[in-house]
Amino acid sequence: MTSEQVVPRRGRGRPRAADAGDSRERILAAASAEFSRHGYEAVSLRSVARAASVDAALVHHYFEDKADLFTQAIGMPLRPDRVVKTVLSGPREDVGANLLRAILGGFEEPGFRDRVLGLLRTALGHEFAAAMLRQFLVKEVLHRVAIELAVPDGELRATLTASQMIGLVVLRYGIRAEPLASVPLDELVVRVGPVIQWHLLGFPEAKGP
Amino acid sequence: MTSEQVVPRRGRGRPRAADAGDSRERILAAASAEFSRHGYEAVSLRSVARAASVDAALVHHYFEDKADLFTQAIGMPLRPDRVVKTVLSGPREDVGANLLRAILGGFEEPGFRDRVLGLLRTALGHEFAAAMLRQFLVKEVLHRVAIELAVPDGELRATLTASQMIGLVVLRYGIRAEPLASVPLDELVVRVGPVIQWHLLGFPEAKGP
Repeated sequence: MTSEQVVPRRGRGRPRAADAGDSRERILAAASAEFSRHGYEAVSLRSVARAASVDAALVHHYFEDKADLFTQAIGMPLRPDRVVKTVLSGPREDVGANLLRAILGGFEEPGFRDRVLGLLRTALGHEFAAAMLRQFLVKEVLHRVAIELAVPDGELRATLTASQMIGLVVLRYGIRAEPLASVPLDELVVRVGPVIQWHLLGFPEAKGP
Repeated sequence: MTSEQVVPRRGRGRPRAADAGDSRERILAAASAEFSRHGYEAVSLRSVARAASVDAALVHHYFEDKADLFTQAIGMPLRPDRVVKTVLSGPREDVGANLLRAILGGFEEPGFRDRVLGLLRTALGHEFAAAMLRQFLVKEVLHRVAIELAVPDGELRATLTASQMIGLVVLRYGIRAEPLASVPLDELVVRVGPVIQWHLLGFPEAKGP
């Protein structure tokens, strides 16, 4: 497919023969609007293509699936589901520390940090934003963790893991409570890694029989 | 002291001979305004008395100290420092579970839940609100925990504890991620109690030598 398939949106003052970067940006803008209007569950790659006035194949060309489109629309530098998969493919006893390091590592980038804190703030204030964040977390992150872990209560374990992660983000990067805000990432991994491990797999299993 | 010491505020349409309930409410309103304007650190019982146009002794009559005034001004049903003291006076190996039960128990009250989520939302959005919440947390809650625990890194342990608590509040009551949102409090204590214990005291100490 080429950029010729793109029908420029009216009233945006863009040239008719939009380049590839333009179509990608247009799809992202349409996706943001669609997710905000209808929520994570209700949106499909097809409905975003319709909203952006492009062929559905073009959306598939730029974005792997809905999770990919969503994370790029809200500007996440990493796909949570990929992080989860990578981390879970490492040694089982290091899952807690590795997951923590991967997620917190992303927060060293100020732009990402600010967007996630903004997302959390909105989610705490608006029923709709909370539902969207919840649907995304459950469907694209937590459910995958649950499947990968193959423990019967994997979904509860995944939400408990998220609770420690999000709390750490809020206190370290949002409220910036000391001394937590200044502790080096390595020390944080030593402190909180076992907690993530506990939430995900329980300590006895993590430490062996 | 009596309510005669109270100078009614102008323009509120209240009767001149205010009753005791009125003076208390007036002090709380002045305290809210002072905390919002100047932050937690800069406000004193004396400055609130001045703002409310009452004698400082009257403020002391209704409120034990600044922490008491603050928690009542923002509508907290429990004083975090008292909760901490009560919990720490129980068995050392039950500190995690008891602290968790006490704090989460407060969130069963919808009014309190909404106020704390509102406070968090504001803190994530405004530098000033974040500073106020941080100052209150550090000075009135975390510092006390650190002293009571008598561990060298008590302040870091206290902020890590707060990170798990706040994350749990955000996910269970704010975003309401399932299945975490529906898990009975008792099961939550079993799941997260050991984490709080780990953050506060470390597992080895909690489990004995």
